[in-house]
Amino acid sequence: MHPAQATALRDLLHTQRLAALGTLHQGEPFVSMAPFAILPGGGGFVIHVSRLATHTKDMMLSPAVSLLVVAPSPPGSSPQATARVTIQGQAQPYPDSTPGHAEAKAAYLSRFPQTADLFSFADFSLFVIRPTSVRFVGGFAQATTLDPAALAEILSNG
Amino acid sequence: MHPAQATALRDLLHTQRLAALGTLHQGEPFVSMAPFAILPGGGGFVIHVSRLATHTKDMMLSPAVSLLVVAPSPPGSSPQATARVTIQGQAQPYPDSTPGHAEAKAAYLSRFPQTADLFSFADFSLFVIRPTSVRFVGGFAQATTLDPAALAEILSNG
Repeated sequence: MHPAQATALRDLLHTQRLAALGTLHQGEPFVSMAPFAILPGGGGFVIHVSRLATHTKDMMLSPAVSLLVVAPSPPGSSPQATARVTIQGQAQPYPDSTPGHAEAKAAYLSRFPQTADLFSFADFSLFVIRPTSVRFVGGFAQATTLDPAALAEILSNG
Repeated sequence: MHPAQATALRDLLHTQRLAALGTLHQGEPFVSMAPFAILPGGGGFVIHVSRLATHTKDMMLSPAVSLLVVAPSPPGSSPQATARVTIQGQAQPYPDSTPGHAEAKAAYLSRFPQTADLFSFADFSLFVIRPTSVRFVGGFAQATTLDPAALAEILSNG
């Protein structure tokens, strides 16, 4: 990957806090908002969700998910010039007993200190999404496919 | 729907230009960016896509899609306070010969005048997404489900 593209991808995922999470719902795609943080080492993403929410029930039944993160698009700019990344991955519940739970929780709370109270809600829990494939579009006709190891290296540098 | 919620939903869809589009890809959800416009009358959304793109091939095989539109989330704000709407819908190709094509194209170009050149690209074409169900979350624990007729009325007022 071109160094400028790698920097743009890293900046996108370190700067934007909200992803669009696609889950499989009754055989159809369902997209909802998911605040996300990056696991130490860049090997995955952590989300904090309610078991009452549609996307959580979906992930329990079908762990294949898709995350989209989009850069801000100023009014008047060309929409196709907007940087964005789609991450296909596998979601897994990450309860307190999971090795790495503390690091995942710390990563999430570092990004979202406002959500600390939610960790005392019985229905909220962490899920980790491990990428299987990554498609970064840096702008019009600037698409790159990369594998999870390349993404982890990009995210853990700098 | 409470008038303040209706206003917030209308503002969200009239202000934000980019949706996250969920399609079914080889049996799994796939989320990509889609600039969108609102059809006159509020009965649907129009997108302009390349037939070379994954989401377009997906929609041709499986028209059930999901659109997520999210309000800006200022740094430091609570992510759960972010307004967002998920629209489940059916996508259909909208070639030049479709009744209503001219209105859909005009709505899209009114929002995205920068994309006029793309209408001369042979691989780009319009799709219309007709809502089947709508879930608006105005903030933490402020979720409302509404039907397509209610959404159309909200979008066409004011």
